[in-house]
Amino acid sequence: MRVYDILEKKRRGRELTDGEIRFFIDGFVSGAIPDYQASAFAMAVCTRGMTARETSALTLAMARSGDTLDLSTVPGRKVDKHSTGGVGDKTTLVAAPIAASLGVKVAKMSGRGLGYTGGTLDKLESIPGLRTALGREEFLGLVRRVGLAVSGQTGNLDPADKKLYALRDVTATVDSIPLIASSVMSKKLAAGADCILLDVKAGSGAFMKTLPEALELARAMVRIGRDAGRRTAALVTDMDAPLGYAVGNALEVAEACETLRGRGPEDLTELCVELAAGMLSLADFGGMARCRELARGAIASGAAFAKLREFAAAQGGDVSVLDDPSRFPHAGFRREILADQGGFLCAMDTERVGAACVELGAGRAKKDDAVDPAAGILLRRKPGDRAEKGEPLAVLFASDEPKCRRAEEIFRAAVRFGARPPEPRPLILARVPAGG
Amino acid sequence: MRVYDILEKKRRGRELTDGEIRFFIDGFVSGAIPDYQASAFAMAVCTRGMTARETSALTLAMARSGDTLDLSTVPGRKVDKHSTGGVGDKTTLVAAPIAASLGVKVAKMSGRGLGYTGGTLDKLESIPGLRTALGREEFLGLVRRVGLAVSGQTGNLDPADKKLYALRDVTATVDSIPLIASSVMSKKLAAGADCILLDVKAGSGAFMKTLPEALELARAMVRIGRDAGRRTAALVTDMDAPLGYAVGNALEVAEACETLRGRGPEDLTELCVELAAGMLSLADFGGMARCRELARGAIASGAAFAKLREFAAAQGGDVSVLDDPSRFPHAGFRREILADQGGFLCAMDTERVGAACVELGAGRAKKDDAVDPAAGILLRRKPGDRAEKGEPLAVLFASDEPKCRRAEEIFRAAVRFGARPPEPRPLILARVPAGG
Repeated sequence: MRVYDILEKKRRGRELTDGEIRFFIDGFVSGAIPDYQASAFAMAVCTRGMTARETSALTLAMARSGDTLDLSTVPGRKVDKHSTGGVGDKTTLVAAPIAASLGVKVAKMSGRGLGYTGGTLDKLESIPGLRTALGREEFLGLVRRVGLAVSGQTGNLDPADKKLYALRDVTATVDSIPLIASSVMSKKLAAGADCILLDVKAGSGAFMKTLPEALELARAMVRIGRDAGRRTAALVTDMDAPLGYAVGNALEVAEACETLRGRGPEDLTELCVELAAGMLSLADFGGMARCRELARGAIASGAAFAKLREFAAAQGGDVSVLDDPSRFPHAGFRREILADQGGFLCAMDTERVGAACVELGAGRAKKDDAVDPAAGILLRRKPGDRAEKGEPLAVLFASDEPKCRRAEEIFRAAVRFGARPPEPRPLILARVPAGG
Repeated sequence: MRVYDILEKKRRGRELTDGEIRFFIDGFVSGAIPDYQASAFAMAVCTRGMTARETSALTLAMARSGDTLDLSTVPGRKVDKHSTGGVGDKTTLVAAPIAASLGVKVAKMSGRGLGYTGGTLDKLESIPGLRTALGREEFLGLVRRVGLAVSGQTGNLDPADKKLYALRDVTATVDSIPLIASSVMSKKLAAGADCILLDVKAGSGAFMKTLPEALELARAMVRIGRDAGRRTAALVTDMDAPLGYAVGNALEVAEACETLRGRGPEDLTELCVELAAGMLSLADFGGMARCRELARGAIASGAAFAKLREFAAAQGGDVSVLDDPSRFPHAGFRREILADQGGFLCAMDTERVGAACVELGAGRAKKDDAVDPAAGILLRRKPGDRAEKGEPLAVLFASDEPKCRRAEEIFRAAVRFGARPPEPRPLILARVPAGG
């Protein structure tokens, strides 16, 4: 087998065999296939596409390119939940404790924020003392004992994805359904859960800007999960506005706590109940209606919030900030943004809101940037709301005033006012059920 | 300007600006743009194509990436002639002396054979003593004094092509009209001739296997030449059979001498007259009919052969082998191939005939292989000819018998017999005139 022939075949839009795809991934990870051939491969896939069969084969080859986590020693259904990334998306901090409080085992490997999207690890680390770099045994022990653990990648998981993603990032080959789907799903497969619930975001604050694209990605990922023998389902959800009102690490943890205590924003509560119910349903707790009831019950009873506390404490976190979010470290500067005109907030370019947060220090422009846990934005108005001139739109938090000023400029450019409210947009845009 | 954006744009099939293309080529040659981005670019061009405007901009950027040859100090029209490569194609050795004997200045930079195609430098170097590594001043002096010089590349001509071709060769991105056309034409532009005559081969012994592909390439190259302000025309000619009867370096030089003396094979003579007439016509010697007459006259008068002798002597060659080709060094072994059945020779897979020559030592499998000047094939039958069982089809020449045996196997697999002769195929398949 020669990589040249594989490149030639894909260039002409022909379907690669499983063996050819394995040969390519193994050779790339071992270093036998150089970057310049791998980038040509990525470009050929971007322009010619891949069949569902090829995409599944690519995902499996990537998932097996390094260590894999064996969760079989943990009793019960192991459910993973993954969001494709958005702004103000703190659903893991709410849905995972709900599901875990009801007996589902959640072993979640998570990532950090990059660019305008946030990352669960950054949010969790705003809880003083909380460690997310867990060893494999510690991680498995916590899943077994607490029912919920969140860690950065343990061991050498999916090196093919790390290497290929780094290359795609500099060769304009990120934006391809087969490559995105295989990148996400190979990590999920390597992480070992039986069930995978995907939250594919669509809108101005998501990687997929439109519903059709997001739905295509959701379908591709569910198909891969099924081909790999995992129960997999997906929701396509709205990201044309930030979720809830808080964007920024500690601010989002505080909002997650409120939500788990039954006092959260409507949209965030609805989506978290839906996601928790989806996780429960995949784990055989019943139909969606029954599982929604269970999820709401876990919030009402306090069991879900107790699970968040237990989980945070088990990973070394100071839970006093969860009990009283005013104890989170405060930002040095705050700046209120007031409406300079009256009217309805018609649209919010959510990617720009995320960019404003990066400016405030709450996110990363580059991979190795440090994150300020206290920085971020609290929205006072969301799309559909009315504001009179001089009324607050948002409050910005940062370590110094210039950051606030720059972020205000970005934020103001992100919002659009009008005389009439926008069409209401549903939160759940589409569902791709497991099986079938 | 960022190379990422250029890749993104081409990936989406959008047209690049001249500035973007220059930025890419300059960055690639300087090393600022790494191979993995360049190979992604090449793959994007292969799959998305390029407009004529982009292709011309790419060619110009490549032509200007290194030294260029200034022929303006040489009086008269400077005409270059280029073949896209075939089997038994010794037309330069015939057409260039014809044109030069009539007053055209031919300053030709040529290449070596690779794979099944031969190269003019290898053929010339079978003339004992003849040097093809000329310095710039020596080369220009010979063009001025003799009217004809053939050299390997002098100086650092078109480094962009060298670098890009090496990368395309290992990333399955060779086969693309814009990339092939720009590779050929950038070298021609850098080599400085006013007029360029292209001989684009089509058929089983050519890179372009079909007439439509070859015609598309010919048109692309003529357009580039015109955009660059050079008089450029192309012939598309048949390569479904070797040209003439000789394939192999000294064997081809001998056949070229015969042709210049008016005793050459019909197909070779016809094509060389056509090519020489094309060169003359580009150089303002008149219409094609008049130029053909001039070309035939130069053969008949002996002036063309005298020009070949003068040129070879000026580059250090021992011209006694031209006067008496039996003085060429002989191969150690010869093997006659006899027909194992009677019938018409219907088809000859000319690429395989070229491959048999590589096996004999007349060509190169790899870039750095040595070439045996005496090795090769003399055909006794060509497509359309009849042979009875036991009659000779070809004679093979090599330095040892195992090579002959292996080559015979390849040769026999290349020929197909039948009860009826094949449709005769014209030698000149299409013309792309200059201008307009």
